[in-house]
Amino acid sequence: MNTNVAAIIVLLAASAPVLAQPSMTSVTAPYRALAKRLLDTSLSQPKAYALLAELIAHSGTRLSGSEGAKRAVDWGMDAMERLGFARVRSQPVIVPHWERGNASAQIIGGAQLHILALGGSVAAPEGVTAEVVEVKGLDEAAALGDRARGKIVFFNRPMDPTLPSTFDAYGRAVDQRVNGASVAAKVGAVAVLVRSMTTSIDTFPHTGTMHYADDAPKVPAAALSTADEERLSAMLRSGPVRVSLTMTCRTLPDAESANVIGELTGTEHPEEVIVIGGHLDSWDVGDGAHDDGAGCVHAIEALRLLKSLGLRPRRTIRAVLFMNEENGLRGAAAYADDAGAAKTERHVAAIESDRGGFAPRGFNVEGDEADLARVARWAPLFEDMGAERFRTGGSGADVAPLKKHGALTIGLIPESHRYFDYHHSAKDVLAAVNERELELGAAAMALLAWILSEEGP
Amino acid sequence: MNTNVAAIIVLLAASAPVLAQPSMTSVTAPYRALAKRLLDTSLSQPKAYALLAELIAHSGTRLSGSEGAKRAVDWGMDAMERLGFARVRSQPVIVPHWERGNASAQIIGGAQLHILALGGSVAAPEGVTAEVVEVKGLDEAAALGDRARGKIVFFNRPMDPTLPSTFDAYGRAVDQRVNGASVAAKVGAVAVLVRSMTTSIDTFPHTGTMHYADDAPKVPAAALSTADEERLSAMLRSGPVRVSLTMTCRTLPDAESANVIGELTGTEHPEEVIVIGGHLDSWDVGDGAHDDGAGCVHAIEALRLLKSLGLRPRRTIRAVLFMNEENGLRGAAAYADDAGAAKTERHVAAIESDRGGFAPRGFNVEGDEADLARVARWAPLFEDMGAERFRTGGSGADVAPLKKHGALTIGLIPESHRYFDYHHSAKDVLAAVNERELELGAAAMALLAWILSEEGP
Repeated sequence: MNTNVAAIIVLLAASAPVLAQPSMTSVTAPYRALAKRLLDTSLSQPKAYALLAELIAHSGTRLSGSEGAKRAVDWGMDAMERLGFARVRSQPVIVPHWERGNASAQIIGGAQLHILALGGSVAAPEGVTAEVVEVKGLDEAAALGDRARGKIVFFNRPMDPTLPSTFDAYGRAVDQRVNGASVAAKVGAVAVLVRSMTTSIDTFPHTGTMHYADDAPKVPAAALSTADEERLSAMLRSGPVRVSLTMTCRTLPDAESANVIGELTGTEHPEEVIVIGGHLDSWDVGDGAHDDGAGCVHAIEALRLLKSLGLRPRRTIRAVLFMNEENGLRGAAAYADDAGAAKTERHVAAIESDRGGFAPRGFNVEGDEADLARVARWAPLFEDMGAERFRTGGSGADVAPLKKHGALTIGLIPESHRYFDYHHSAKDVLAAVNERELELGAAAMALLAWILSEEGP
Repeated sequence: MNTNVAAIIVLLAASAPVLAQPSMTSVTAPYRALAKRLLDTSLSQPKAYALLAELIAHSGTRLSGSEGAKRAVDWGMDAMERLGFARVRSQPVIVPHWERGNASAQIIGGAQLHILALGGSVAAPEGVTAEVVEVKGLDEAAALGDRARGKIVFFNRPMDPTLPSTFDAYGRAVDQRVNGASVAAKVGAVAVLVRSMTTSIDTFPHTGTMHYADDAPKVPAAALSTADEERLSAMLRSGPVRVSLTMTCRTLPDAESANVIGELTGTEHPEEVIVIGGHLDSWDVGDGAHDDGAGCVHAIEALRLLKSLGLRPRRTIRAVLFMNEENGLRGAAAYADDAGAAKTERHVAAIESDRGGFAPRGFNVEGDEADLARVARWAPLFEDMGAERFRTGGSGADVAPLKKHGALTIGLIPESHRYFDYHHSAKDVLAAVNERELELGAAAMALLAWILSEEGP
């Protein structure tokens, strides 16, 4: 019995039942009813999934500069106007325009490989045929020295499966995809193959952006499926392997595009802004459903939910659909530049959703423990939505630039285990999204945006 | 600034950073290293998914009394022996034996409907053709009185979408499926159709068990897909609809079957037992991957993980694969009867996994706040696995009977949003399970079982 009493005391100091304590009640009480209404409304009259289906049906894939991206901008404007948001507008952004074309790779005397050109890669229209040399990272590639000359360097360090967040694992492996081509080219490689950034083993290659250094030759770069990676790696253990690689991708002149913006204008401090957003562009495979169709409809649905409850926020809550997150971040830069230049507006906070439409677990607050504390005191309100984990951590590439203009930047954190099964691949389709999970992300963003608009800076 | 300081204090009293406090350290410190080793080992060398694939490939569906269920018992014995568990054995269980046969339903002058006979239903080999009357629940059906005579009663109350746990919504809707036939038959109905217990709208019917009251005629009962439900309900609003229903299911004599049991025998108190388990039988559609192949491999994998780390528990940790959860609970009864009769053993705790192989969120502890407190003080250890939510609530149908024999009964609680998309339908297949999510459930069960075996009653 004594053990139990002691345990109860420990428990009260550390876990869920503490929510009933007076200290928490006074902090969360003003928002309890709203949290419940948002939960009920979102789950009984969900619209996020239907909006996502619309975006995909209307636009298809939405790589910056493409016709699909243009259609996505039109859809975003139309959706926000239809839903009655205030000040619906597009914000011009000049974006890179890269086209995939075709890509194929073949083991000489062996099987076809499943590849996708990396975004921004130069082409290999005549084909490159060379021996493959496998490395586990950039340092090992640089250390190859002359042994890389004339070869295809194969970057094959997997995402670390032991990290609880697959995003952490992605962050520690993606340098191979982003910088591998130039590192290898500096020591004479003629092309690179990069293991797909995914936690699953299958034949779907996962594309993504890459970057050429100014001081290295530009060589073709492609993502290889993990199933092929296992096969190729096994063959390399028994002897030399030659691969032939052909790619017809091309970079066109920069194109005109736009961010899409709409809002619920603040009643007391319209000039103080809370941004909620995702990115409207996607890669050109799959539907871009989780990345980041989900984030776009999270933002739109969050505003729609608040509006449907007849709420008018004290400060402006603004949905921003950013263009060109995937291969340039030009939309984020354009928005932040304007935010910095505008002397009449002040950005209080910005919440990004760019980690998929899975069940929300909580939020990352970008900053120190004091920044976290400003927000985490409301965490108990998010428990029924499943989103009560507030931690310090990265917000997101599109809102992070607003930090220098004074905004508290925050990222929605959904469950991450499945995300990289789909990310940047043909598997990122509408059917991979669950309606309830998607909707709860929107409800959680709506609630946090509302609280921040009430509480202010 | 003051606001921030105040907020920090509130935060320290209520959320994650509290883990670093001394009071928690002393409770969780003995298990921190193990928690990390279990996380690392499970995610870097996962075996649960491969075990699940084996079970499915070897057995197919596993309805009690079927050949598939026999093969599943063989597989369970073989897997436990192969993995070197101690005292691997089968425990005889006599189970019901119902066979689905065929079922079809057609709107007269209209479309075919997607149905599945409910488990245990009588047949309608010659077909039943009758007008349909729609109700939202048992009371409304009973109140039909003579208006039900000669009709097919159509139970159409959906699962409440606003409940955060879909299991709660299931619990509040499933009375229609379990008792609808007898309630309707008492007022003269000739058959029942029941809206599928699912949160998605599609053409997959979801079967499940039903029960005939002793004082009512036995009429055929089938589950109708939610897409058909919407169509049928719309038609009924414009006028009478007649449906023809044919089912060839049959109930055979009870059959011999078995629970499958293996363990890591306790070094200090082998007679004190912590059970971990799921159920080996499944419905006869899909693969029974989430329900409850996942629970079976959770239990096996939890033991394998502990064994692979060279650990020998103080008390016995026992994996039990229960037979006949779906339509009889005979395996649970057999195990509990033996546990109650055995004067040489004492059941300290029992942890059930029967809510699918999704990302674990925590555990339900069956009992009061004091029971919860016994276990919840270790919650911080489960945070990296994502399973730190400890709450009071139901454990599971197979372990609940052990409560009367003194065991603390506990249920693993995975994320529930997707579960009823698949449950009891052709969609519950291996591909609907994510390897990381499945594996973390096993790791969480292993950790909790280990702690309970160290701490004792």
